[in-house]
Amino acid sequence: MGYLALTGGIGGAKLAVGLARILAAEEIAFLVNTGDDFEHLGLHISPDMDTLTYTLAGLSNAEAGWGRKDESWHFMAALDELGGETWFRLGDRDLALHVTRTGMLRQGVTLTQATRRIAATLGVRQPIIPMSDDPVRTQVHTASGPMAFQHYFVRDRCQPAVTGFEFAGAGNARPSPDLAVHLEGCEGIIICPSNPFVSVDPILAVPGLKEALKASGVPLVAVSPIVGGRAVKGPTAKMMGELGMPATAGQVAEHYAGLIDGFILDERDAALDGALAMPTRVAQSLMVTLEDREGLAAQALDFIRTLNGGST
Amino acid sequence: MGYLALTGGIGGAKLAVGLARILAAEEIAFLVNTGDDFEHLGLHISPDMDTLTYTLAGLSNAEAGWGRKDESWHFMAALDELGGETWFRLGDRDLALHVTRTGMLRQGVTLTQATRRIAATLGVRQPIIPMSDDPVRTQVHTASGPMAFQHYFVRDRCQPAVTGFEFAGAGNARPSPDLAVHLEGCEGIIICPSNPFVSVDPILAVPGLKEALKASGVPLVAVSPIVGGRAVKGPTAKMMGELGMPATAGQVAEHYAGLIDGFILDERDAALDGALAMPTRVAQSLMVTLEDREGLAAQALDFIRTLNGGST
Repeated sequence: MGYLALTGGIGGAKLAVGLARILAAEEIAFLVNTGDDFEHLGLHISPDMDTLTYTLAGLSNAEAGWGRKDESWHFMAALDELGGETWFRLGDRDLALHVTRTGMLRQGVTLTQATRRIAATLGVRQPIIPMSDDPVRTQVHTASGPMAFQHYFVRDRCQPAVTGFEFAGAGNARPSPDLAVHLEGCEGIIICPSNPFVSVDPILAVPGLKEALKASGVPLVAVSPIVGGRAVKGPTAKMMGELGMPATAGQVAEHYAGLIDGFILDERDAALDGALAMPTRVAQSLMVTLEDREGLAAQALDFIRTLNGGST
Repeated sequence: MGYLALTGGIGGAKLAVGLARILAAEEIAFLVNTGDDFEHLGLHISPDMDTLTYTLAGLSNAEAGWGRKDESWHFMAALDELGGETWFRLGDRDLALHVTRTGMLRQGVTLTQATRRIAATLGVRQPIIPMSDDPVRTQVHTASGPMAFQHYFVRDRCQPAVTGFEFAGAGNARPSPDLAVHLEGCEGIIICPSNPFVSVDPILAVPGLKEALKASGVPLVAVSPIVGGRAVKGPTAKMMGELGMPATAGQVAEHYAGLIDGFILDERDAALDGALAMPTRVAQSLMVTLEDREGLAAQALDFIRTLNGGST
């Protein structure tokens, strides 16, 4: 009973809101990328989980796509005066979440448990599950060597050309114990329109995780993060170009080949409908309004129902 | 050449400002209590050093006696929403100092070095020296058992009756290496009007420190924190009562007997002038204005010159 959605940053969080609004809280759970987690200023920071948590709590800064709304920056200004590192912006209110989570982790609380407590305190009723309680750290390979993900993504604004990716620690990571709980009786799995290389692949790199998804036997569908040859947001298309791939929705479907049972294309890519080696669904996938988010979520659920043998 | 002042919290910081204003930066150094340091929310917090640093940098909240002026409290509000510990108030700007210092300490920088760097960044030119780079933690003994100092002082607002004090870790602590540097060629040592039990005694409890002060051979004078039978600020008089001592300036002089060469009394206690077993100086010791601070500093320096054999 219910659905599981794999998600990374802002694009994923948008669809997550849609799913959260059209399903009961016990019908949806989110499995979140922690490959972009990092230690900064002595704090454990989980950017993708924070984006989702704030979004579902109604506290997110929708314009920026990260952090909290109604934020202030006095800590950052004082840190700058003290000569501290300011390339990763931590708002005064946001800081409280990082301090709270870091304190829990130091006391031996797992990331799964810490996330559950924080989400509950902020009034989020849908389960938010980190992909793993073990550290996995995405490294972006570039011509000038490997870079920690946040250095690539935030400090260097995705400017270096990528040559590949590595998920350090993934070999020894285990899926969050909450994953099995939510796969029990699951009706379908959705890969949100997140970056395949740095949001979704780290999740799939956790040994046993992909196998657990497949073993559930339910339809697994992905929503294309590429629309009309461009990424809606973020470096997906730029990365595909640098990796020598065409930046097309079809290429993303191929990236997930063997894992997914169906692919959701944007209307702008309707020409690909029926042209891929898997079932496709054409949908309005640009999520500008709340209705867009709900509409795409409904399309994803309906697509899963169809794949489950139901009628459209 | 120059003077050394031992200091704890707000009373000490007031006299420190006076000394800093009438002496050149290379003529004065401050040796500061770290017995009230503690780990809180994963941060190393040094309340007495912070009070002095902010005061000398012109950044202190003079009304509160701690923290920064023009402070905001958004971190605290968000921490409260998350169910975090809010009894120790950390302002948004103040937090940057704790994060910076904690980061340095984690990298293996000593407290002496970290303090030097932070003070320099904030434009403080006078040396601020922690009594030790090793952890010393003041425990307040009460009828219901020992309490960490900040729990007694901040969380419980000095309400429990004290039965004694313990400086955990002092046995293994060494004086800051910068102390010897500043005792070289020192002309006099001043114990600021700080709480004898929890601001000054922790400093004196560091093995070898008291001996180093004595071995310098220069006059050591203390300024009474008790004026007319009352503490100017803080729990000194309350503690003296609970410990079965009269809350008098004379009792404070007796507390320091064997260490100090002279004692500075407030005008309200002029009756004690000449009645103690050591030289005394009567001064206007209530420091309301900046002129009060400078005046008391000048009196302390003049008293030292007299004890050094100069004329008044």
